[in-house]
Amino acid sequence: MTTTDRSAGVTVLPMPDLSPTFPGPFPSSPHADHIQAHVGQWLHRFPLLGPPDARRTLCDIVAHGVARTFPTAEPDGLFLCADLFLWLTAFDDTYGEATAAGSPAQLVRRIQGCLHVLADGEPPGDADPFDEALQDLLVRLRTRATAAQYLRVSCCLRDVLFGILWEAHHLAEPDHVRLHDYLAMRPHTVLVRTLIAVAEVVLRYELPEEARNSQAVRQAESAVADLAGVLNDLGSYARESAKGVPNSLNLVSLITREQSCDIPTAYAAASLLGEEHAAAARHGIGALATSDSAPLTEHAGALESIACSYIWHINHARYKKA
Amino acid sequence: MTTTDRSAGVTVLPMPDLSPTFPGPFPSSPHADHIQAHVGQWLHRFPLLGPPDARRTLCDIVAHGVARTFPTAEPDGLFLCADLFLWLTAFDDTYGEATAAGSPAQLVRRIQGCLHVLADGEPPGDADPFDEALQDLLVRLRTRATAAQYLRVSCCLRDVLFGILWEAHHLAEPDHVRLHDYLAMRPHTVLVRTLIAVAEVVLRYELPEEARNSQAVRQAESAVADLAGVLNDLGSYARESAKGVPNSLNLVSLITREQSCDIPTAYAAASLLGEEHAAAARHGIGALATSDSAPLTEHAGALESIACSYIWHINHARYKKA
Repeated sequence: MTTTDRSAGVTVLPMPDLSPTFPGPFPSSPHADHIQAHVGQWLHRFPLLGPPDARRTLCDIVAHGVARTFPTAEPDGLFLCADLFLWLTAFDDTYGEATAAGSPAQLVRRIQGCLHVLADGEPPGDADPFDEALQDLLVRLRTRATAAQYLRVSCCLRDVLFGILWEAHHLAEPDHVRLHDYLAMRPHTVLVRTLIAVAEVVLRYELPEEARNSQAVRQAESAVADLAGVLNDLGSYARESAKGVPNSLNLVSLITREQSCDIPTAYAAASLLGEEHAAAARHGIGALATSDSAPLTEHAGALESIACSYIWHINHARYKKA
Repeated sequence: MTTTDRSAGVTVLPMPDLSPTFPGPFPSSPHADHIQAHVGQWLHRFPLLGPPDARRTLCDIVAHGVARTFPTAEPDGLFLCADLFLWLTAFDDTYGEATAAGSPAQLVRRIQGCLHVLADGEPPGDADPFDEALQDLLVRLRTRATAAQYLRVSCCLRDVLFGILWEAHHLAEPDHVRLHDYLAMRPHTVLVRTLIAVAEVVLRYELPEEARNSQAVRQAESAVADLAGVLNDLGSYARESAKGVPNSLNLVSLITREQSCDIPTAYAAASLLGEEHAAAARHGIGALATSDSAPLTEHAGALESIACSYIWHINHARYKKA
């Protein structure tokens, strides 16, 4: 394990060493600037975020993140993925976390509006930018995806919204959260399951159902999903610690409680877990990549670049800034 | 409008007159007793309900309800549908309503376990009968359905679980619920959207995507869904009134609040709404039934018998018993 984060001026927290499994440098799409211009315009059409600073930072991380998530994709697919990621992040920033913990019932009502749109309901008379933007995303998704691909993403979006709600109910009482349940929720709240489902739509391939339900695909997907969750937790814990308010609903905090240990020990354990997931992901992706099936090798490529985008992600300014 | 419910010994509440639109008698499957025996065995394998009385009543209503919902279906499809309906009802009875209102966070945790199963997660080590039964249902559903049909039902199940959670957050403060939002949620909580999605799997047909997204199909489905919600509310309001504790989160209560009127007036307005939905459903089903497309006429038949099952439903003992 290497020790990084000295720049943040806080206790040195041992980040995982992923160089043996995902050495980098990670390829990026030549359309990154294009994506950034597009999300700026999309946010102008659907004003999901008020403060210009927050908007600029979010557009930057989403554009460059998606450019790394799907470096070989064509612009239209990248735009759709970026807008979707932006919508989910802006929704969480606006309605989730601290705001939601204060009034879970209010969040339940907000999510109900989104579920109505997801369930093909008529748009409400008082639709706000989040409803309208979601409607726009679903129309574009439906045009580009097969029926099953569309529904798979639709399931993932419901799971993310439930995840935001789940977090809101536990921020105030993290003691009720078992590590096992937290780890089960994380792939949804960190959006990686959505990205995996969106990959086929963005890159225009389709896994045969038998392959999708195979142990090989499930194992590789789970390893990437778990890796994404751990990395995000390590990144956000370091960031929040630097601000002096580490999130109590975080893998590191949960490990300190479950194992009655101090923070550096818990952080080291989480880092080690990240390295283990990275090794499992590398192994699983490798097995799919050498298969004879074209969609399986495409899926391997997508899982690889999704993993890389999360590794890249935690070094972005949104995580570095105290 | 006819006036019924004299037997319950409470204020006479004007039930809608549906005889012009759905005159009955409603056909029932010859396999009704078969279904009842099956659900009894299934509940023995997965003990979702404790009290023998509650179990018997629920098995009875589910078996005879499903026999009317899909009178022409083969036994395997009927068993799957009955078990699914039973699971949802038992889940709501066990974890929803009053229990949930006392601790929404606990319900959130319970639902999280179900979503983990729905999202193809590994079963938890401490899986309870609800997790295990859900897993059983999904395996059988996957075997019988196309990928898109499976995912469509999976979306509906998520929406029902969210609906139970939504209700739990509002039982204590129904004043926060707008009539519009209540009406949008009702097709999910009354399980009719799930039944519509399950119809194709039970009866083995598949709507072409273009037809599914057509105005004609959407309008007919919405009318049946809205009719089911209103009927269920009228039935349960009458039942709860007879017990002296009418549910405050009910169409009738919401109308009294929104229109500042008394209960008989609100009940009459809701009954009239039911008659209007029934007329719209009859019209929409009629249009699909005369189409040249075989799946569309099958869908029309399914929507018709789903509507009939809700009409039959509110006269069942579960609703009549005080």
